[in-house]
Amino acid sequence: MPMAGQRRIDLVLESVRRLLRMGATPNLLNLLQKQHPADLAQIFSELSERERHAAFNVLVEKNGKLAMEALSEVGPEKGAQLLALRSAEEIARLLQELPSDDAAALIDHLPEELSAAVLVLIRPKIGGGVTELLEYEEQTAGRLMNPNVFALAEDLTAGESITALQQARDVEMVFYLYVVDDRRHLVGVVSLRRLLLVPPDTPLKRIMTAEVYSVRVDTDQEEVARQVASYNLLAIPVVDAENKLTGVVTVDDVIDVIREEATEDIQRLGGVAGDETVLDPPRAVFPKRNLWRLINLGTAVLAASVIGLFESSIQTLATLAVFMPIVASMGGIATTQTATVVVRGIALGDMTTSVLRRVLWKELWLGVTTGAANGLVIAAIAYLWKGQLLLSLILAVALLFNMLIAAVVGTLIPLALKAFRVDPAIASSVIITTFTDVFGFFSFLGLATLLIRFLL
Amino acid sequence: MPMAGQRRIDLVLESVRRLLRMGATPNLLNLLQKQHPADLAQIFSELSERERHAAFNVLVEKNGKLAMEALSEVGPEKGAQLLALRSAEEIARLLQELPSDDAAALIDHLPEELSAAVLVLIRPKIGGGVTELLEYEEQTAGRLMNPNVFALAEDLTAGESITALQQARDVEMVFYLYVVDDRRHLVGVVSLRRLLLVPPDTPLKRIMTAEVYSVRVDTDQEEVARQVASYNLLAIPVVDAENKLTGVVTVDDVIDVIREEATEDIQRLGGVAGDETVLDPPRAVFPKRNLWRLINLGTAVLAASVIGLFESSIQTLATLAVFMPIVASMGGIATTQTATVVVRGIALGDMTTSVLRRVLWKELWLGVTTGAANGLVIAAIAYLWKGQLLLSLILAVALLFNMLIAAVVGTLIPLALKAFRVDPAIASSVIITTFTDVFGFFSFLGLATLLIRFLL
Repeated sequence: MPMAGQRRIDLVLESVRRLLRMGATPNLLNLLQKQHPADLAQIFSELSERERHAAFNVLVEKNGKLAMEALSEVGPEKGAQLLALRSAEEIARLLQELPSDDAAALIDHLPEELSAAVLVLIRPKIGGGVTELLEYEEQTAGRLMNPNVFALAEDLTAGESITALQQARDVEMVFYLYVVDDRRHLVGVVSLRRLLLVPPDTPLKRIMTAEVYSVRVDTDQEEVARQVASYNLLAIPVVDAENKLTGVVTVDDVIDVIREEATEDIQRLGGVAGDETVLDPPRAVFPKRNLWRLINLGTAVLAASVIGLFESSIQTLATLAVFMPIVASMGGIATTQTATVVVRGIALGDMTTSVLRRVLWKELWLGVTTGAANGLVIAAIAYLWKGQLLLSLILAVALLFNMLIAAVVGTLIPLALKAFRVDPAIASSVIITTFTDVFGFFSFLGLATLLIRFLL
Repeated sequence: MPMAGQRRIDLVLESVRRLLRMGATPNLLNLLQKQHPADLAQIFSELSERERHAAFNVLVEKNGKLAMEALSEVGPEKGAQLLALRSAEEIARLLQELPSDDAAALIDHLPEELSAAVLVLIRPKIGGGVTELLEYEEQTAGRLMNPNVFALAEDLTAGESITALQQARDVEMVFYLYVVDDRRHLVGVVSLRRLLLVPPDTPLKRIMTAEVYSVRVDTDQEEVARQVASYNLLAIPVVDAENKLTGVVTVDDVIDVIREEATEDIQRLGGVAGDETVLDPPRAVFPKRNLWRLINLGTAVLAASVIGLFESSIQTLATLAVFMPIVASMGGIATTQTATVVVRGIALGDMTTSVLRRVLWKELWLGVTTGAANGLVIAAIAYLWKGQLLLSLILAVALLFNMLIAAVVGTLIPLALKAFRVDPAIASSVIITTFTDVFGFFSFLGLATLLIRFLL
């Protein structure tokens, strides 16, 4: 049993570094060739840029197929960077080692001139599969699918089908066998196991299932993933507008989509680009990180300007400044909690407008109850600390109000963004907590200012 | 082609509600029977509790298998709630419609007495598969696997293997055929397609691959998912401590794990329980939501007490109170951004201690550059607003400092939590932003207090 896991990879990584330093190319090659492409990908990611290029060069000279498979697993962006130092001819030759979908993704991330040169060279060779894939929009089934899909003609028998399968070459993982008519319209599906269980002269039409889940070339990849995951499929056929079979998306690609989409949601909620990784060079990350920090600065200035309205009250009673951030902070956690559940609910398909009233009710209920509970606690703390009963009560009331605002804002803003076809995860804490920051300062300082003569 | 997607489900949902209101049981049954279990699960989730019980009751009387499959898709927790109103005898009978892993998950979520009664009834019937599964720890491969795994004896030929497969019953999705020795030790794997491509008298030993990725019954489900995803597997065999084949985890279960783990990470980062869903009843959610709000109240009071140290400075110069939240807020976005990328990096396996120095360097670089950029902007705004040059400079310096603190805290806290075997996603904004809140108030108000005589 191959030993798996991070510890093994760390050991290999250490050896790769040592062999690179020693210049022991044959030993290095030997070690690299023993790795699974996915493990190589992780090793490449953890090497420094210089080491990565050196290791890739050693491997690609002797075992182009493995090197390219590892490159695919590294991801198209970083994979293309490793390829980009080579000539268009060499790249075109190496890309032939990959399935069309992986090749297309890499070409798409090469520098523009290079990718144009590679496409010219590759067209006559692989018969256009790659070029056509690149014509579909990004993040659609068309981009994700493998166009080399094995299909059976509907007038075959079970025995003929098995023979056809035995003669087929270069077919990616076969578990569902799709059945097409003479114009390649998708008409059914049959499993390999079912073919084996019936007498060889059984017509395919009799044993196939005519109800096939399929997606269109322009279906969004998230919807593709949703269907594969919901219906527990291993693959889903992709058809064009006329229901002609044009490709297949397999479950391993769907897993990548699910992980990417989850990363995107998590990171956007945290105010980070959806595709940032821990090892991205800081210069590349700077623009997006700084954009959100600038936006946050803008919202902070907005909140400060609300405080500015009450500067004279604070001048009169500096204690107000001490308690002021508490109300805003409590609104912040409440909006973040609500928006997080709502955004995830939208992604998982649970949060739709048909359940809006129930969700809003739930959040308002939570706003009232937690607002009352926390309001009592903070009023007690403030009273023990400063001994001002009225101030403590104002604090509690402002906190409760802010929790209710949080419930409404946290539920509605993500839904509104979705309605405008903006990713709801963009409703990161930066945007939504602006409301509760501003309202929190306003309600607490406003109430205190109204009642200030009783506070002195 | 079955019409898929949310729109279709919404239409069915509407009809289900109407038929329930009309009491048109035969029509309702007819409609429900046409749905895929996954679609039924979504419909059940969107119905109110009363409607859900009514619809489930109609279906379970006539089509127990479909009803139970839908229940499984609803998830073990809510599924168990729907079952819990029935007698132990009936539940035991219905559970036989499900694979052992799904049945075990449901039993595990029944009220304690009921689940004990069901287990007694079920033991003699399914031969213990369910009972044994429940002995493995939650969230391990043992809990996730299907124990009914089809295996071939290593001394068979290809032809005999196909015959064995044809005679096997009740085998979940077969694509990899595992090969075992006479004591059921896992010794190899062969694909169905490969069996078909060789002459029937070829010994299995000659065509099987002896290197099989496998996991142990006690392997954490996240590690199972990582291996299936990295190595693009459709299933992974599960072995016991002696390498005996005891089950198989299929890719559809892995997809569920990946989605659950992503939901857990997203929600914990947002200060919400990992398994909360938008439609959870508010009463059930209250304790955990309120716990985080109370913790947040504690950290807010801590920050307020820092401000309290400088109350006399604020009394002297109320303008300080206006700008004070800006420094804290900028530290907040910076820690959130950093911690989000680091937490996700840990989950994806990219963030390890071996790359800590590179990540810390990246975050510090970003802290300096964005700190300088935003510091300049806020200094200009403050100067234009209040006309106090020194105050503007203090603001800029405090902001820069806080960005550096954010870089360190956001990187180290999640890693430290992981080292202590706590989920790093618990480093939700509530915990980590405490540091930058406190430090932000302290540095800005502290600097201003030191230099206060030049500010007046």
